[in-house]
Amino acid sequence: MSLWDPRAVVATKRDGKALDAGEVAAFVEGYTRGEVTDALAAAFLMACLLRGLDPDETLALTRAMVASGDTVRFADLGAPTVDKHSTGGVSDGVTLVFAPIAAAMGLAVAKLSGRGLGHTGGTLDKLESIPGLRTDLSPQEIERQVADVGCAVAAQSPSLVPADGALYALRDATATVPSVPLIAASVMSKKLAVETDLILLDVKAGSGAFMKTPEEAAALARACLDLARGWDRRAVAAVTDMSQPLGDAVGNALEVAEAMTVLRGDVGGRLRELALAFAARAAGELLGLSPGEAAARAARAIDSGEALERFRRMVEAQGGDGRVVDDAWAILPRAKAIFPLTSDRDGVLASVDAERIGLASGALGAGRIRKGDAIDPAVGIVLHPKVGDRLEAGARVGEIHAGTEASAAGAAADVLAALTVTEGPVEPPPLVHGWLDGLD
Amino acid sequence: MSLWDPRAVVATKRDGKALDAGEVAAFVEGYTRGEVTDALAAAFLMACLLRGLDPDETLALTRAMVASGDTVRFADLGAPTVDKHSTGGVSDGVTLVFAPIAAAMGLAVAKLSGRGLGHTGGTLDKLESIPGLRTDLSPQEIERQVADVGCAVAAQSPSLVPADGALYALRDATATVPSVPLIAASVMSKKLAVETDLILLDVKAGSGAFMKTPEEAAALARACLDLARGWDRRAVAAVTDMSQPLGDAVGNALEVAEAMTVLRGDVGGRLRELALAFAARAAGELLGLSPGEAAARAARAIDSGEALERFRRMVEAQGGDGRVVDDAWAILPRAKAIFPLTSDRDGVLASVDAERIGLASGALGAGRIRKGDAIDPAVGIVLHPKVGDRLEAGARVGEIHAGTEASAAGAAADVLAALTVTEGPVEPPPLVHGWLDGLD
Repeated sequence: MSLWDPRAVVATKRDGKALDAGEVAAFVEGYTRGEVTDALAAAFLMACLLRGLDPDETLALTRAMVASGDTVRFADLGAPTVDKHSTGGVSDGVTLVFAPIAAAMGLAVAKLSGRGLGHTGGTLDKLESIPGLRTDLSPQEIERQVADVGCAVAAQSPSLVPADGALYALRDATATVPSVPLIAASVMSKKLAVETDLILLDVKAGSGAFMKTPEEAAALARACLDLARGWDRRAVAAVTDMSQPLGDAVGNALEVAEAMTVLRGDVGGRLRELALAFAARAAGELLGLSPGEAAARAARAIDSGEALERFRRMVEAQGGDGRVVDDAWAILPRAKAIFPLTSDRDGVLASVDAERIGLASGALGAGRIRKGDAIDPAVGIVLHPKVGDRLEAGARVGEIHAGTEASAAGAAADVLAALTVTEGPVEPPPLVHGWLDGLD
Repeated sequence: MSLWDPRAVVATKRDGKALDAGEVAAFVEGYTRGEVTDALAAAFLMACLLRGLDPDETLALTRAMVASGDTVRFADLGAPTVDKHSTGGVSDGVTLVFAPIAAAMGLAVAKLSGRGLGHTGGTLDKLESIPGLRTDLSPQEIERQVADVGCAVAAQSPSLVPADGALYALRDATATVPSVPLIAASVMSKKLAVETDLILLDVKAGSGAFMKTPEEAAALARACLDLARGWDRRAVAAVTDMSQPLGDAVGNALEVAEAMTVLRGDVGGRLRELALAFAARAAGELLGLSPGEAAARAARAIDSGEALERFRRMVEAQGGDGRVVDDAWAILPRAKAIFPLTSDRDGVLASVDAERIGLASGALGAGRIRKGDAIDPAVGIVLHPKVGDRLEAGARVGEIHAGTEASAAGAAADVLAALTVTEGPVEPPPLVHGWLDGLD
């Protein structure tokens, strides 16, 4: 029997006092070893949520979580390494576009993703809509692929930060998710466990994001950057708009297809702009390019076809059918029923309830409610108008890709209900609310 | 699968909003049925502790706890019924003295006790130090005994307020004990599940009590009385001194023996005074006596020997050896080793760390740390001086009743370390800080 009573740690936080690093580490270790019960850990999480954690406590929590599992250190990949993480949004295909652009610019993109819950699939789910593609790469496979191709997007191993997996599931089960320090520790533990030269954070703000305002998103970004600084890791964060879906496509194969149009240079728009902005920022940080030069090189990676080629090679290296870049819909699964979506109103699009659109896509089968749920890669929503665009009643604004006509009708009604129109002109929201630098 | 998500209840309280009675009831029912996990309930308890519960929420919680089990309604016992509860202290033998006095005055005392945790035993443990005495009485046995003798002290059935048992164990395990509304709901659920005409609450304040100040104790008393009022039950509470052990004896058989000396009228002091005060208050409430008349009748119950006789008959009705009232130490178990306790200092006793004395008695074997631990009925501490008394170095101040010389030495050192002396005169603390009336 241990003389140490983990209840004392909970009582200290409950009473609003700061914990020292040793107390936090002992508590997390005890939880990982099964000596601290789920109930005591849940009381701890609620106390942390309501009393807060200061930067030192948050760092200690993150360190303890990283220490619960393996860490990844890649062999020399011949190029500076970059990892990118988005806090999640609707039609957030940035990684699919960013990774091959950055690779084409001479960076090594080694991205390990978790397979989180969400109304829309995660990056792994999107990639896996490409027939044959696998994401369960070994560290050696990742190293070889990144050295050859410049980018790899793979599933993180269960031995990476197991305490985060356990604590996240417990938070989901106990209404203790919405805490900035707990979210920051969860996000950053998985980034800090993988050694890269730069961490890029895309912290979303708006109706389709967990953080509803740019101010809340900035607070989360700062908490994440504080952790990177405490770890002596270079990181930058952008607070970006999620007040509407970023691209036009919401769904797994649909978002891959849209990424292909962006990588081919066929379309402009906010998805392209944001992926270019992250690639340029990474090149500026890691290759010493000026902002103007970095932006020009990023655009050139698309225009030259080099980024598209990197994507093809990444898909092929991971066992997928590389012809997806030539003719996406010859390769990707197609929904049984595709219905046009027409506007029921005249006016200027003033705002979008992006979460509602994400949920509508999830209801079609594109996301999962419980861990392990199967998803349908083919279904989803395409919605073209962005805030500030004019709608005309009866005009086509997109498509519903569904398994049945009934589910399509439900999704169409949800999408239209998620749109608010007005008479006057509407200024589009900024795409990037601001950048925060980790070594400020 | 239920559409109701109990996490929403926790999220509401987490966000500082009030719960309605239906939400509280559904949550407690869900916990009792095993649909709400310990982890989610622990998060709920921590949110309640940190966000607070208003009187309506506390009443709803108490109602839901009572509804989790059976309730007790005695047949007509021929006299007004009274229940008494103490929040717990050191050398708190009030029930042992109060019950037979009240019975002698024509009241029916039906007291159901839980077998709580504590450094010193509870009332059931004390009574069970009398050879043969049993406390597992059926409701019919209790009714018959109260009708015959006027008093019964029995163990509450496990079917009475099972939600309290489960929630209390969870609070103990998750550092969520110190919350006034949660304590009040726990205390009062067990009192409200048993129908009596009056509930007497002894809310202790001081170094030997959970509430360290009279103000904190008064807040708990008010929360308990609010619940009684919400239930339309008559209740009165006294905030009483626990800044030092109430009587001289700390231990199970030792406290029974001390109660016998009080019931015989051999000694005065604070234990006698407080038991008389509660009996007089109960008689005033239930028999319509004036305070002066009630006090005189209570004292007469001792002086006439009638209270002692009631105690004998109660013990015999419960299977115990009634000769304990004639010669306690001929009947009660005696410790192997009894050591004199002598003062190591000259001065006036200024304060006592009563909890430390309770813990020292517990370390001798008089209390239990875990549910189900065995206790030694014979061991304990006798300490005569009260705050304001003069100590002389080398003079005998009490005794240690122990199993071994080594444990006695440890207890003696602890008791002396718990005493603070000063030079000047010290005013003794008031015995009763104040009375609060439930129907104010």
